[in-house]
Amino acid sequence: MTRINRREMLKIGSACSLAALATATASLAEAPKAEDNHAPVPRWEVFELALTGPSSGNPFTDVQLAATFTLEHRTVKVDGFYDGAGVYKIRFMPDTEGEWTYATSSTAPALSGKTGAFTCIAALGGAHGPVGVCNTQHFAYADGTPFFPFGTTCYAWVNQTEAVQQETLRTLAAAPFTKIRMCVFPKSYEYNHNEPALYPFERNAEGESDFTRLNPAYFAHIEDCIAELRKMNIEADLILFHPYDRWGYASMPAADDDRYLRYVLARMSAYRNIWWSLANEWDFMKAKSRQDFDRFFHIVEQNDPVSHLRSIHYGNTMYDYALPWVTHASLQTAKFDSAPEWLEAWRKPICFDEVQYEGNLNSQWGNLSGPEMARRFWLGVIAGCYVTHGETFLDPDLPLSALNENSTPVIWWSHGGKLHGSSPERIGFLRKLVEETAFTAGKDAKRTGLDAQVEHDYLNAWTLDSTGTKKQEGFYYFDLHEPIFYEFPLPEGKFTAEYVDPWEMTMSPIPGIFEGKTKLKLTGRPYQALRFRRVE
Amino acid sequence: MTRINRREMLKIGSACSLAALATATASLAEAPKAEDNHAPVPRWEVFELALTGPSSGNPFTDVQLAATFTLEHRTVKVDGFYDGAGVYKIRFMPDTEGEWTYATSSTAPALSGKTGAFTCIAALGGAHGPVGVCNTQHFAYADGTPFFPFGTTCYAWVNQTEAVQQETLRTLAAAPFTKIRMCVFPKSYEYNHNEPALYPFERNAEGESDFTRLNPAYFAHIEDCIAELRKMNIEADLILFHPYDRWGYASMPAADDDRYLRYVLARMSAYRNIWWSLANEWDFMKAKSRQDFDRFFHIVEQNDPVSHLRSIHYGNTMYDYALPWVTHASLQTAKFDSAPEWLEAWRKPICFDEVQYEGNLNSQWGNLSGPEMARRFWLGVIAGCYVTHGETFLDPDLPLSALNENSTPVIWWSHGGKLHGSSPERIGFLRKLVEETAFTAGKDAKRTGLDAQVEHDYLNAWTLDSTGTKKQEGFYYFDLHEPIFYEFPLPEGKFTAEYVDPWEMTMSPIPGIFEGKTKLKLTGRPYQALRFRRVE
Repeated sequence: MTRINRREMLKIGSACSLAALATATASLAEAPKAEDNHAPVPRWEVFELALTGPSSGNPFTDVQLAATFTLEHRTVKVDGFYDGAGVYKIRFMPDTEGEWTYATSSTAPALSGKTGAFTCIAALGGAHGPVGVCNTQHFAYADGTPFFPFGTTCYAWVNQTEAVQQETLRTLAAAPFTKIRMCVFPKSYEYNHNEPALYPFERNAEGESDFTRLNPAYFAHIEDCIAELRKMNIEADLILFHPYDRWGYASMPAADDDRYLRYVLARMSAYRNIWWSLANEWDFMKAKSRQDFDRFFHIVEQNDPVSHLRSIHYGNTMYDYALPWVTHASLQTAKFDSAPEWLEAWRKPICFDEVQYEGNLNSQWGNLSGPEMARRFWLGVIAGCYVTHGETFLDPDLPLSALNENSTPVIWWSHGGKLHGSSPERIGFLRKLVEETAFTAGKDAKRTGLDAQVEHDYLNAWTLDSTGTKKQEGFYYFDLHEPIFYEFPLPEGKFTAEYVDPWEMTMSPIPGIFEGKTKLKLTGRPYQALRFRRVE
Repeated sequence: MTRINRREMLKIGSACSLAALATATASLAEAPKAEDNHAPVPRWEVFELALTGPSSGNPFTDVQLAATFTLEHRTVKVDGFYDGAGVYKIRFMPDTEGEWTYATSSTAPALSGKTGAFTCIAALGGAHGPVGVCNTQHFAYADGTPFFPFGTTCYAWVNQTEAVQQETLRTLAAAPFTKIRMCVFPKSYEYNHNEPALYPFERNAEGESDFTRLNPAYFAHIEDCIAELRKMNIEADLILFHPYDRWGYASMPAADDDRYLRYVLARMSAYRNIWWSLANEWDFMKAKSRQDFDRFFHIVEQNDPVSHLRSIHYGNTMYDYALPWVTHASLQTAKFDSAPEWLEAWRKPICFDEVQYEGNLNSQWGNLSGPEMARRFWLGVIAGCYVTHGETFLDPDLPLSALNENSTPVIWWSHGGKLHGSSPERIGFLRKLVEETAFTAGKDAKRTGLDAQVEHDYLNAWTLDSTGTKKQEGFYYFDLHEPIFYEFPLPEGKFTAEYVDPWEMTMSPIPGIFEGKTKLKLTGRPYQALRFRRVE
């Protein structure tokens, strides 16, 4: 890998001299206009400053704009971006309550030396800040609230019809998912042949893109989508590059890649519910090398003032998730039994982001049964990791001739729309269990999330106390095994026990308080679980 | 490994000089007594000669006895054995019709120089000879009839009560199994705490064994069991050593091991339905080394005139199945996706002889669901290999206190008795399909058995023509995938197609004759299969 671009970024940073405080106009809808004093901004919401500047030439390449935001001793630098029609914007997500001031700097005099101030007030109800890594292999919001990724996948939902997008949002509102994998660029693939309503770059009459001129409306639309997800507390796992392309976005020159990336970072970093996924199936992008993705990681590290989570997803060949600029692993595999060695090697959270999809497609990656998808969630969670859902149903009543890869049906995995499968309800049940267990343990233990215990006969995972050794609450998952009894080697202490049926979504308490070697009669049915909760 | 014992055997063999023809008494029940001319013996049945000899001292160590059987230009040497009460026996399975003569040689003058003759006549109906390897990775009887191992496991059935043994035989008569894994020595293990009715060696009042004195009645009983299996055309996969022992049989001195082994070979090789399994879980036998098992293989190679199939089963560490004295692999794993590389490396048939058991035991090796066991048979067969069943059900209505490893319930996997599971019926269905497909193909193709095709989206296996390249009849198995349609890349030629439901055991022909790329609508349910049969 090369560190050249990291150094380049540092040079650019130091070249931006701090300007004196001056007036600016904030575009926050609710903000009363004031020369240099804006409306208060709740913690982790977006402060946006709109400035008028040059619209001639190519503002995307000609104009540099940045601002520093200062709270007491602390200063944060953020890049601005051109939003079209002569308007430049700077967005900033304040992470601390108090009096913030800012000052702009720019190669364009009209944009430089603007200053102002705003007060960051308490967070809105339900806002917990951006998600970060917590307890090595788990996640939490900035305010310490545990976050459990129970993700889904709608790669190209932002590029479907308005009606489908609205349906997707309605579906998500009723679904159990806390994270969604979605692409910035439109998608060209089997069952994905429609043209997007907007394009990310300006195009001439022949449909040729000018990669030096971004289309602000395209990105503004994606931001609207991200803001809708934010309302629902869904993290947008935003895929910055992907190979499934017929417009040239997967094979732009490096300078255009980097400019696009900085543009997205400048526009979107202030949305607290973003995770950066550098690519989907990076190794299938023939025009890119491993070194290109290393460089992209460095650009993201340097230009995201919020330090959102960063990862990258592969097709066949893993990226090296041990590298320090990767915050968590984003896997395409269902090899859950490899999780212990990966957790040990990487010391990071692991998201099994593509474990194949529930559905009935002709391709084997897209036709798992609902029970199998639900099972994979249990296997991932009980391995101390996280899993992402996807769904790929074709209408089974279609005639054979209509069942073909050149059609463009509405399939959740790419387009969004409606869910048809049986796994989401069970995924929601598991999410509820994990949240209950982890939050309860969290109060005493300060360690949220389930850590897999690998030395036992059957899969089991526990929340641990603050020393990381004392087990608090845990699940056994018997997977395809159907014992009629088992002697559980409980940790020291006393526990309650409950039968859990992951498919029927039932909990049945077992009378008594248990300690030591605990022999229990079990159901003799497969795919069952047990929960133990410490009472003493 | 050492070849010392192989050389020793050769020395012993050359020391046995051919004696002149003389009279002997055959003990075949139906044989009319004649001085030197015995009743005819059907091909692949047992010719047995009983001789009276010394009973003083230790006949097992003091007396050497062998005979040569000659048909025209061919001579076969077989060892005799002491059967107690002064009676010595020689057994021989003639594999060719015609006039056989024999001559004995012995260190005991009373046993030496006995000669005689018998006619080997046509095989009895249903007798096809011993099973051997055919077409690299498949099996066939000596007469060329394909043999498909659909095995089961009753490790210690010969050491249960007479009533349970009879029940086992009745169960096997109605079950689909063509091979049974069974131990020579009694078994001491979880749920196996009973004493056998007979012991393989003489014991003193304190229960100490004299490993130099075998108990003929013990082995005669096992032979009765093997003969009962032979009536049902079930192959006895006879396990010669195993680690689960409290009598000392797993840790005898090498000389006693070797004497025991030669004794079994002399007594039992003439039973056409034997396969030799050198050990169960050889690597768990702490008193034995890899070299010991190499030596055992050489003893078997040198002392089995029938050259029955030879393999060995492991716990964690595989024996090297590439070694030339191993005829096929006997695996303990469910890693069916490793089959292609193993088939390529070993160029031998593979039996997945322990893929865990259908049941409800507390241990995870013993509590698969019926559908999972049936699925594993499909995965093994579609990988071009063979699979062995086992069943481990505890009565689910027992109280918790009675569910414990120190009890001795009757469990099929070890004791025999009755079957309770749902997989055997489905295994029988698969067996029928494989036999139909392979026998039909066999007529034209001279290649029986399914060979896996590894380059396709979905698991599929085909019978091939005599060149090993032209596909004749085949199965697709979709496992957990549930496509609603698929375009099958059929081989050149024309085919019929049928939906196969492996669990419901139904076949549904799809109207039409298909060729080339064939798009078919499928059920959208998991664990389904398709069969294609060549019509042109």
